[in-house]
Parts: sequence; structure tokens; C-alpha cells
Amino acid sequence: MSEINWSENEKKAADEIFKRAYEREINSLIEEVRQKAIDTAEIDDLWRLHDFLSARRHEIDGKYDYRYSVLIFVFARLLKEGWLSLDELKALEPNKLAKINALARM
Amino acid sequence: MSEINWSENEKKAADEIFKRAYEREINSLIEEVRQKAIDTAEIDDLWRLHDFLSARRHEIDGKYDYRYSVLIFVFARLLKEGWLSLDELKALEPNKLAKINALARM
Repeated sequence: MSEINWSENEKKAADEIFKRAYEREINSLIEEVRQKAIDTAEIDDLWRLHDFLSARRHEIDGKYDYRYSVLIFVFARLLKEGWLSLDELKALEPNKLAKINALARM
Repeated sequence: MSEINWSENEKKAADEIFKRAYEREINSLIEEVRQKAIDTAEIDDLWRLHDFLSARRHEIDGKYDYRYSVLIFVFARLLKEGWLSLDELKALEPNKLAKINALARM
């Protein structure tokens, strides 16, 4: 159950790591949407942009779940997707880090 | 019931007028979305853009209804909203034109 026990220092670090990944993904998404909007030439492109935003919003709303009971899985996914590096997770307990790393490789 | 009787010539003209209004509104919308995307600085702006697109898509899907039984109302709305000019509707029967104009002023 070590993955649901977080020391105060770990909580602080986890909060920062989480926010950093979120900001990165959001900034990347904003850039992508800007580019898609610039490339929009006709109505089908516009509705595709709308569909894209619907899907990404749904995905991001579900993904960034800051509950300590699931944070190990959230960080593993963010690591796998490249929004976090292993190095940035080193403020966490070695046990958690190993689990996150193992899950990210699955 | 004159508003549901359309001569072949009127049908042809109505089709062109309809398409012209649609194209105008869509081009204006694309321009507006581009500008909103450029102005997007944070996540809330992005989700506002998404909400905006959802609402506009729904509105446009409902508005551009090419059934002869409702076309008088569609043209009246497009006239009122400025996507058509009265001048462009002059290919239609005077009776229809008068109705469209009256509805647009309501």
C-alpha cells in the first residue's frame, strides 16, 4: 500500500510535478489547436477541430486525477506519454519511483 | 401556401442564395475561430473556444435547413442576421420576398 502513503514532502513534490506535466500538455495542446485553426480552410476542417477539442478535453479531464490513491498510475501514464521525465520524479520515494517506472513500461 | 410552391427557376435561385449565405457565415466563423485560437493563452480560453464551437455547430446545423416548407423562415433569419441582403433575394417571387422581408423585421 506504499503507493497511497505520501509524506508531506512527497505530497509537495508530487503537486509540483503534476502541475508541471499539466502545464506542458496544455501548452502543447494550445499550440496544436492554433496550428489547426490556421490550417482550417473549410467547414469540415472546423468540425474536425471541434471533434478534436471534444476528445482532448474529455481525455485531459479524466487523466489529470490528483487523488493519492491513483497518482502512481497518473504519473506512470504521464511518464509514458513523455509529459514527465524519470528524472523529475526522483523527489518521490524509491519504491514509488520503481512502480511508476515499471507501469510506464507496460 | 405560396411559400411552399417554388418554380424551377426559383428553386435554382434559392439554392444559389442559400449556398452563398452559408459560405459567408462559415467563412466568417472560420475567421473568428482563427482569431480566438491565436488569442488563446490558457486552458480556460481553450475550453471556451470548445464551448463556442459546440454552440455554433449546433446553431448552424439547425439553421441551414433547405426544405421548401421552411425556406421562407430560413431566408428571413439570414436576412435579419445580415448573411443575405434584400437585393440578393429579388430573384424570388414578390410575394415570397414580401413575406421574408416582413418576417425579418419581426
